[in-house]
Amino acid sequence: MSREATNGVPCGARVLTLDTMNPNVRRVEYAVRGPIVQRAVQIEKELREGVKKPFTEVIKANIGDAHAMGQRPITFFRQVLALCSYPELLEDNKFPEDAKKRARRILDACGGHSLGAYSASQGIECIRQDVARYIERRDGGISSNPDNIYLSTGASDAIVTILKMLVCGEGRDRTGVMISIPQYPLYSAALADLGAVQISYYLEEESCWSLNVTELRRALNEAKQHCKPRVLCIINPGNPTGQVQSRQCIEDVIRFAKEEHLFLMADEVYQDNVYADGCKFHSFKKVLFEMGPEFSSKVEMASFHSTSKCYMGECGFRGGYMEVINMDPQVKAQLTKLVSVRLCPPVPGQALLDLVVNPPQPDEPSYSTFMKERKAVLADLAEKARLTEEIFNTVPGITCNPVQGAMYTFPRIALPQKAIDKAKEQGLVPDMFYCMRLLEEEGICLVPGSGFGQKEGTFHFRMTILPPTEKLKVVLQKIRDFHLKFTQEFS
Amino acid sequence: MSREATNGVPCGARVLTLDTMNPNVRRVEYAVRGPIVQRAVQIEKELREGVKKPFTEVIKANIGDAHAMGQRPITFFRQVLALCSYPELLEDNKFPEDAKKRARRILDACGGHSLGAYSASQGIECIRQDVARYIERRDGGISSNPDNIYLSTGASDAIVTILKMLVCGEGRDRTGVMISIPQYPLYSAALADLGAVQISYYLEEESCWSLNVTELRRALNEAKQHCKPRVLCIINPGNPTGQVQSRQCIEDVIRFAKEEHLFLMADEVYQDNVYADGCKFHSFKKVLFEMGPEFSSKVEMASFHSTSKCYMGECGFRGGYMEVINMDPQVKAQLTKLVSVRLCPPVPGQALLDLVVNPPQPDEPSYSTFMKERKAVLADLAEKARLTEEIFNTVPGITCNPVQGAMYTFPRIALPQKAIDKAKEQGLVPDMFYCMRLLEEEGICLVPGSGFGQKEGTFHFRMTILPPTEKLKVVLQKIRDFHLKFTQEFS
Repeated sequence: MSREATNGVPCGARVLTLDTMNPNVRRVEYAVRGPIVQRAVQIEKELREGVKKPFTEVIKANIGDAHAMGQRPITFFRQVLALCSYPELLEDNKFPEDAKKRARRILDACGGHSLGAYSASQGIECIRQDVARYIERRDGGISSNPDNIYLSTGASDAIVTILKMLVCGEGRDRTGVMISIPQYPLYSAALADLGAVQISYYLEEESCWSLNVTELRRALNEAKQHCKPRVLCIINPGNPTGQVQSRQCIEDVIRFAKEEHLFLMADEVYQDNVYADGCKFHSFKKVLFEMGPEFSSKVEMASFHSTSKCYMGECGFRGGYMEVINMDPQVKAQLTKLVSVRLCPPVPGQALLDLVVNPPQPDEPSYSTFMKERKAVLADLAEKARLTEEIFNTVPGITCNPVQGAMYTFPRIALPQKAIDKAKEQGLVPDMFYCMRLLEEEGICLVPGSGFGQKEGTFHFRMTILPPTEKLKVVLQKIRDFHLKFTQEFS
Repeated sequence: MSREATNGVPCGARVLTLDTMNPNVRRVEYAVRGPIVQRAVQIEKELREGVKKPFTEVIKANIGDAHAMGQRPITFFRQVLALCSYPELLEDNKFPEDAKKRARRILDACGGHSLGAYSASQGIECIRQDVARYIERRDGGISSNPDNIYLSTGASDAIVTILKMLVCGEGRDRTGVMISIPQYPLYSAALADLGAVQISYYLEEESCWSLNVTELRRALNEAKQHCKPRVLCIINPGNPTGQVQSRQCIEDVIRFAKEEHLFLMADEVYQDNVYADGCKFHSFKKVLFEMGPEFSSKVEMASFHSTSKCYMGECGFRGGYMEVINMDPQVKAQLTKLVSVRLCPPVPGQALLDLVVNPPQPDEPSYSTFMKERKAVLADLAEKARLTEEIFNTVPGITCNPVQGAMYTFPRIALPQKAIDKAKEQGLVPDMFYCMRLLEEEGICLVPGSGFGQKEGTFHFRMTILPPTEKLKVVLQKIRDFHLKFTQEFS
C-alpha cells in the first residue's frame, strides 16, 4: 500500500468509504427500518430455512403498513386503477359505471391518455383541483387554490422538499427546525441529511402527549443561542404518540408561530384516523383561517397528506400532496423548479390520490360498498386502539396513553436497573435491548422508543395497532407475558 | 415595517423569501422543464381559451415522453399491472395465462399480496433477483448479485442518491464530479443542490459527440486546482447528444477512472435505444469485467436503468434500478439506511420493472404480441432517427450528427450576429431567444442547447425524435422553414 495513485490516494483504497462518504448521510438514522427490522427479516429467512424458534412467524408491528397486516384495499380504488392501467377494460361490463367515469377522467388528463406519460411536475391539474375541493369540503368551505397544491411521492417527499427549501446559513445562522420528541424519525433524518439544526420540544406524556406552548417557548429560547429557528413541525394526529390536538392547542401553536416568525409544517397524514370520544381532527389550515385575516394572511404554512394511512392504507403507491399557504410567489416558483428536476410524482399514485379526494358519491353505484368498506376499516381501528390501551394498562410496568388517533401506541415501559446495566454492557440502549429480546423470544418486531426520542431516563416502544383483532390480542398477550418475564429476570 | 418581531426579523416580512431560502436550491436549473416549457403550457391554455395563434396545437418535443407522443403501452405489461391492481381479475379468462402467472408471482412477493404494502426499501427481493438475471443475460453471463441491486423511483432518484453519498469536504477538498458537456441537466441540478463542484468535460461534436480521454484528463487536471475530483459520470447512449460509445472508448474511460481513482456512474437508461449501423450497446459492467480482475475487482461503479425509455417508455410509473459494483460493504449499509428513510420506491413501478427484465418467453402465449410490439417501437424510432438527421442536414445553417441512439437530436444551429445581439438586448441567451421564437411562431417546443451546456460561441437545441413519423416530418419541415426565415430576418 505504499504506492500512491496520481491524486495522492493510496492505491487499492476505495474511493467511497465510511471515512470519505457524506458525513451528513452517516448521521442519518431511521429507526422504523433500523437494525431491529433487519434482524426481523433475517429471522424470517431463518424460519423459512427451517431454523427452530420459539415462534412460527415474525409479526412486524414496527411500521404503519396496513395491507401487509391483512387490510384489504378499497374495491373502488383498485377497480379504477385497473381500468387506468389497462384501458381495454373500459369495454368490460363487469366494472361499475362510476369507476369507468373516474378512470376516463384521469386518463383524459394524462399525456397520450396513459399513466405512462410524465405529468406536470406539480401533479396533474385536474387532480390538484380535486384536492383543492376536498380541502374546501373538509375545512367547511375555506377556499383552497389548486395552484397551492403540489402532489408528491408519499408525504415524505413533500416534507423533505419543504425542509430543503428552508435550510440555509452557517454556524449560528444555520436554520433551526423545531420537532416534537417523540417524533417520526423522517424529520430527524431529513435534518441530519440537510445539515439543519434540530430543536427538540417535548410532548407531555402525563397529559396524553399534549403539546404545551410553554415548552415550545423554552425550546425556542434555548435554541436561539446557537441557531436561527425558522420552522415548527407538528404531527397531528401524532406519530408515534397517537394524540389528537385540541382546537385550542392548534390556535396557541399558530399564535406562537406568528409571534416567533416560524414557518409551520403540519403533518396531517392521519387526518381520518381519530378514534377517541370527544376528539376531532381540526386542520391547521381551518383553524388558521378561523383566527382571522391577521393570521390567515400572514402565517406561512405547508400541510401534508398521503394515500398511505387513514382507511385506504395504500403505502406502496407513494401518493401524497401538500398545500402551501402564504408562500412568497417567487419562492413558489423556486419550489416548482425544484420538484421539476425529479420530473413528476408516480402517476398511479396521483390517480389513487384523486380517488381518495373524490370518492364515490351517494348517487353513484359504488357508494354503498365504498362506505361500508371505509367504515369497517375505521371502526376496526377504533376497536383496536381501545383494546391496546386497555390490555397494556393491565400490565404492571407498562403505562399506556389512550390511542386517540393515528395507528400507533407508544407505551412507557419500566425497565429494572439490572436490565439497563446489561444493555449497556452489550452496547445497546436499554429499550433496544428490550425490543431485541422480545423479537428473539416472541417473534414480535417493535421499534424502541429511543428511535423516536424520549425524555432522558424513560423508555418506550412504538407498536402499530394494525394487526387483525385476533392477532393483535395474541400480540398484546405475548408482550404482556414477555414483559413480566423480562422484569422478573432482571429483578 | 419599523417594528421588529422578537427574533429580529421585520414584522410582516415572510419567513421564506428568495433571500432567505436555501441558496443551493436557487442555483438549481433544469431546462427540460424550464421557462420555455412553462410558456408552452401557457400557450396551450390560450389556445383552449380561443386565442388565435399561427398554429392549432403545441408540439412538445422537449422531453422524452413517449406515451405523451402517442406511443402505445406494451399490452402484456399493462395486463399484468391491471391484474396486480385488482386481483379479482385473476379469475377473468380474458387475460392470458402468462400475464396471470407474472401477476401472481409479483403479488406473492408483496406484503399482504397487495401493491399497497410497503416493500423492502431496496426493492422487492424477487424483482431484484429478476433484475440480476436480466443483467447476466445482457452481459453474456457475467454474474450479478441481487444484493447489489437497488430499485428506485425512476433513474433520477438513484443517481441523486449515489451523488449524495459521494459528496463531502469543504473548500478545495469539496467533491468534484465530472459530467459531460452537453449533459442531461439532472446532473448539474443535483450538483448545485448538493453543493458539489461540477467538472465539465466536453464531448467532441466534430466526431459525432465522442468522448476523448485526453479531454477527460484536461478537465480533471484543471479541476484538481480547486476541488477533489472523485466521480466520473457517463451517459451512454448519450443524452442529449445521441451518440453510442464504442467498446474501446468505454475501456479507455474505465482505465482512466481506475488510474485517477474515480467512482464511475454509468447512466445507461437508453440501453435498448441503439439505431445506427455498426453501433452496439456495451454496458460498462460487461467491459469492466472483460478487462480482467485487476479492473473488475477494483473500479467502483454504479449503473442506472429505468422503465421510462427504451421500447416501453413508461415514464409515469417512475420505475428504475441501479447496480452497485465494488462498493464498500459498510458504505452499502449506509446506502440501504439512506434509502429506507423514504420507505420504498413506488410498488407499481417495481412491478413494471419486473416485467421489463422478465418479459414473455418464446413458449408463452404473450410472446409473439410482445415481440411484435417491441420491435415495432424500436424500428419506428430507428426510422425517425434516420429521418431527423437527413432532413436537418438539408437545412443551411443546421448541422446534425447521426442519432446513433437514445431519443434526441442535438443539432448545431448557426445564428446570425444580429440575432445574437437582439437576444442580448432582451436579456436572453441566443438559443433561448431562437427557441422562444420557434415556440411563439410555430407552436414547437424544444429545449435550448444552453440548458445542457455547449462550447462557448456554439448554439444548439435538443429535440426528441418521438412524435409519430408523419407529425415528425411536419415538425422537421416547420423547423426548417422557421430557421430559414429567422436567418433571413437577422441577416
